[in-house]
This record gives sequence, C-alpha cells and structure tokens, in this order.
Amino acid sequence: MDRITIIDIARMCGVGVTTVSRAINNHPDINVETKTMIMQVIKENHYVPNNSARNLKRAASKTIAVLIKGITNPFFNHIIKVFEEEIKRKKYSFILQRVDENQDEIDVAIELVKEKRLKGIVFLGGYFSHSQEKLTQLTVPFVLSTIGMTEEFEPNAYSSVSVDDFKESYKMVDYLCSQGHRKIAIITAPMEDASIGKLRYEGYKKALSDHGIELDLQLVRIMKEHIESYTMENGYAVTKELLESNEEFTAIYALSDSLAVGACKAIFEVGKRVPEDYSVAGFDGLDISFFYNPSITTIRQPVVEIATETIKILFDLIDKKITHSHKIFPAELIVRESTRSIEP
Amino acid sequence: MDRITIIDIARMCGVGVTTVSRAINNHPDINVETKTMIMQVIKENHYVPNNSARNLKRAASKTIAVLIKGITNPFFNHIIKVFEEEIKRKKYSFILQRVDENQDEIDVAIELVKEKRLKGIVFLGGYFSHSQEKLTQLTVPFVLSTIGMTEEFEPNAYSSVSVDDFKESYKMVDYLCSQGHRKIAIITAPMEDASIGKLRYEGYKKALSDHGIELDLQLVRIMKEHIESYTMENGYAVTKELLESNEEFTAIYALSDSLAVGACKAIFEVGKRVPEDYSVAGFDGLDISFFYNPSITTIRQPVVEIATETIKILFDLIDKKITHSHKIFPAELIVRESTRSIEP
Repeated sequence: MDRITIIDIARMCGVGVTTVSRAINNHPDINVETKTMIMQVIKENHYVPNNSARNLKRAASKTIAVLIKGITNPFFNHIIKVFEEEIKRKKYSFILQRVDENQDEIDVAIELVKEKRLKGIVFLGGYFSHSQEKLTQLTVPFVLSTIGMTEEFEPNAYSSVSVDDFKESYKMVDYLCSQGHRKIAIITAPMEDASIGKLRYEGYKKALSDHGIELDLQLVRIMKEHIESYTMENGYAVTKELLESNEEFTAIYALSDSLAVGACKAIFEVGKRVPEDYSVAGFDGLDISFFYNPSITTIRQPVVEIATETIKILFDLIDKKITHSHKIFPAELIVRESTRSIEP
Repeated sequence: MDRITIIDIARMCGVGVTTVSRAINNHPDINVETKTMIMQVIKENHYVPNNSARNLKRAASKTIAVLIKGITNPFFNHIIKVFEEEIKRKKYSFILQRVDENQDEIDVAIELVKEKRLKGIVFLGGYFSHSQEKLTQLTVPFVLSTIGMTEEFEPNAYSSVSVDDFKESYKMVDYLCSQGHRKIAIITAPMEDASIGKLRYEGYKKALSDHGIELDLQLVRIMKEHIESYTMENGYAVTKELLESNEEFTAIYALSDSLAVGACKAIFEVGKRVPEDYSVAGFDGLDISFFYNPSITTIRQPVVEIATETIKILFDLIDKKITHSHKIFPAELIVRESTRSIEP
C-alpha cells in the first residue's frame, strides 16, 4: 500500500484538494464543520500532510555537508566558522558530520548523500586516504580541505585546498637546524599514516638530511594511540616518556601546536625551561600558539583563505563552472619565544 | 495544483500502483513495454518518485539538532563529542547548527523543525534569554544545556542541565577573598546579558559583599563587543586596557578560562608575572587551564556528565517518560598555580 495522499483524503471527504489544503493550513475561507470533518478523516487515516515533506525536500536539496575527523581539534574551529558563513551566504544549509577515526568517510558520505540529497561535500581534516576507485563512487561535488594527499591520484578525479605539508614542515626543521639544533626530536603520526602526518614527517627527514644530520629513530616519537591524536594531552604523554628515556635532544618539533603545548607542559613538570633547556616548535598557527607562555614558534596555515577557497571551489563544481581544481596556499614560519639558537 | 503522486501516474497509465512502483524500481517482474510506457508518462509529467522523499522523511524524522552559539568556544568541543556519541548510540542522526550572536535561536529552531522534522533539540551555550511565551512555540522536545536562566520561568515549561553559575562563581570569588585579595577585577559580560554572564557576575558581587568588600566599578571590565566573546583575544584586549588604566588590583577573575589565558598574556607583555604580581582565575575547566603556564585556577564544569544527562533527558522527553526535568551538577574549584595568597 502506497502512502496516503491529499487526493485520497479529498476523495474520502468528497471535497476538492484545495479544501483539504485549506483545512490543513488553517485557512480562514473554510466552513468550520467541513474543516472538522476533514481533520477527522486525516487523523483516522494517519495522513501526514505532504507539504512538510516537500519543504524538507526543498531544504534538503540545498544542503552542504562538512565531514570532519576530530571535531575537538581547535584547528578546525575557525575553518568551520568560515565554511558556515560562506555556505549561508549562498543560501544553502549546512550539516556538520563527525567521522570516527575508524570510520570510512566515503561510506559516511555516500550514506549522507542518499539520506539528505546533498548538493556538495567538504572533507575536512588530515586523515584521508582512499583508493581512487573509491572516490569515484561519490556522485556529488566534493572538495578535500586541509588534507594532504600522499598517494598518486589522477588530479582530475578530485579537488583540494591545502598547504604543502611536506614543504612547510621542511621549512620548520630547516629553521631549527639553522639555529644550531642537531638533535631534534619529532612528535609524529603512526608510520602507517599516509596523509599529513606522513608528509610532515618526510619534510623533517629531508631537512635533516640536507643539513647532514643522520636520522635518529630514538628521537622519532609516535603519538599515543589510546589518546586522541594531535591533542595537548597526547603531546604531554609522548614528551613525558621522551624525557624519562634520557635521550639527548635540544629541540622538539611537534606536528601540531596542541602537541607542542603538551610538550612544554611535560618539560615544565620536570623543572626544565622552554626555550633555555629545550626549544619547542609546533605547526598550524592556532591562537594558543600566540597566547601560550612562552609563545610558540609555528607554521601558520592561512585558515581563512583555505576555508573561503574551499567553498568557492565547491560552488564552482556545483555550478559546473569547473571540473576540478587544486589550490595550495603558502604557510608562514612564525618565530616566537619557544625556540632559540644554540652554540655549535 | 498539488504534486503528482504515484496514484496519478497509475491512473494515467491504466495500470496499478504496484506496476508503476515496479517500473520505477527496476523490478524484474514487469513487461518491458509497460515499463517503457510508464517511464515515458513519468518523464512527461515531471513526476518525482515518492520513495526518495519517503527515505528522506524516515531519515529526517530520526534527527536531533544541536543549536549552538559560539562554535569556536572550546568549552563546547567535548560536550558536542559526547552529544554525538550518545545520539548515534540511539540510532538518531545529528545536526549541528550554529546560531549567530544576533540571531534568535528559537526562530532558527522553529525553522529547523519545519524543514527537517526534528525529533528533538538541544540548545547549547550560555546566551539564551527568551520570553516563556516564545518557548511555547516550540513543538518538539528540547533541553537547555549549560544555559543559565535568570528570568523567572515556569519550571515545567522547559528542561535544563547546567551548573549553578551563581553559586560556582561565588565559590571562586569567595576563595580569592579568603586568600587575602580585596581588589579583584572581573572580566564579565555586557550588563544587558541576562544569562550565565549575569549569574556569574551576581556571584562575584555577593561574595565581595559577604567579605565586606565594596564593589569598585573601575574593576568591572566588560568584554569587547567587536571581538568574539569569552575568547583569549577578548581577555587579552580587556586586560591590556585594565593594566594601562593604572587601577590597583591584585587579582583578575575571568568568566572563562580562555579569557583568563588572554589576561595572563597581557600581564606577561608588560613584564609582570602570574601569580607573583597578579593572581588570575578562570571558569570552565578547559584542558588549557591545566596545560597553560602557569596552570590556571578554575571552576571545572563536569562536561561529560552534563552532556550525557542532556541527551538522557531529551530522549526521556521524546519517549514521553517525563514532561520536564531540571538537573544541576556541582562544579569543582581547582586551585592551581595562577593564584596565590597575599599578605593582609
């Protein structure tokens, strides 16, 4: 049995569709008794007025979803805010969907497209790694935002906006080396990470190598799996362990500012100072990197530009103005109080 | 003219509804010619098969929306995460909707209810202030989470989960007074704020009064309107101005940890120390209050308990197990490095 329609109700009541519609919408031009009768029939037949479904369809067809891994990462807060403003300016509505670390974001996206009839999708965050084949299952326009792609993808199979994580990471480690540091610990992602974690780690290795410094695996420290990644808490736990290991080092390069804050805290707790005893550097350019004591040397990602460009490309795709686009923004090395030069 | 239904198509084709449905769904048990004819009629009449609307309805009718003012406030990050986990556990989907500071969240909610046919709503954040009459316009279950209500509301007109902002704020200022501070500056909300800002300010005034300290309006400092409220940036700007004013004070009580971090930064910038020159206290119990240097004395809100209880109450309302509920959790004064006792 198909769903009951307003036509069925009209037929049952022996009135026109317009009259049923007036009853439903409290229109003044309807006889009270007729209205009561109609509402009674509606109720008995569990009829759900169709216009809410139609509103829903209209609204839902103008929706953009943002899929994000790690909603608690403050790096995403400003980006999401810009997304929302830009999407609203286009008169679209906006769904924010968190994806668990162990969830497949493409599957989540395909499900969302089915349910909500999305017009477009933004994948936000640094953990994306999928086969190109999988990407082709997505039938709506999408943009990868602040996601480092390590695999060789057909560039016309997707669109992206980000910084060059390899190059920017190289820039930071090159700077630390230029300040005389040769024993530079890194807080990085698990080695199976094929995304920004890998790219930034590769930048670290290349910079060391270019400065004639051999890679010391004792100084390569992996974020704890049981703690949310890229957080202060994780940086704290990793650095505590590093300090307890008595490995010699003069600087810590953390792959995010939050990790760097945690690293500083662990250093303070053993009675050491930043930067006098250890230099600490981060990545991202979060507000806290400026407000922390000491302020933290970092790579500032241009989040407003990245977010604005992401939405611009998405709507260019929706409007079929382009078929794909890749935009890489330069990031900026900001030297602050948490790093110092050391004697050779 | 109402929307064309599957019944209309069946009538036009001279077949049953089931046959039309089979044509649409590529069912094998249908004659190819019949199918071709039906699809032709469907196309000519611009009929949109109803099942996508029905899927949409099914999906949309299991949706909970969280309305939030100030998505960049890190205080909400953990809460939202718990919301999402709990809502997913109930097999509902989850919409996060930001509300601008100058938007009316009830209007936004009413619009959402219409468009998405929500099952429930959570209002998250401290800025809510509405007439009771307005609240009654909401036809779906809702819970106010971490929202201080200052107006006298009929308690059975709504549900809420929060701490007692007046009492917890009193606790902090009472503590500062007990440490010998008598000139305690406050960074607070605009006086027209009728929500947590007001409640926490009232707690400050009452504690001063109970310690025989006269309110000094020169030490009451309002967050800047042109900067996002409760942020590090705002606390920094306000404290900078306070320091430049040369008012005498020994402690700053900021209504959020982020404001407190900004206050510390402004103090460091003029070459002063925390807590040696000024004690600084916050509110919320954010991670950064632990990781900051110095760690910050704060009131820790039990965010996981608040978030879990919010969703529990919402589903009790949806399941009609209760008609309303008000839950107030105790918060905890955590004394850390940023405050000290001073000589009388």
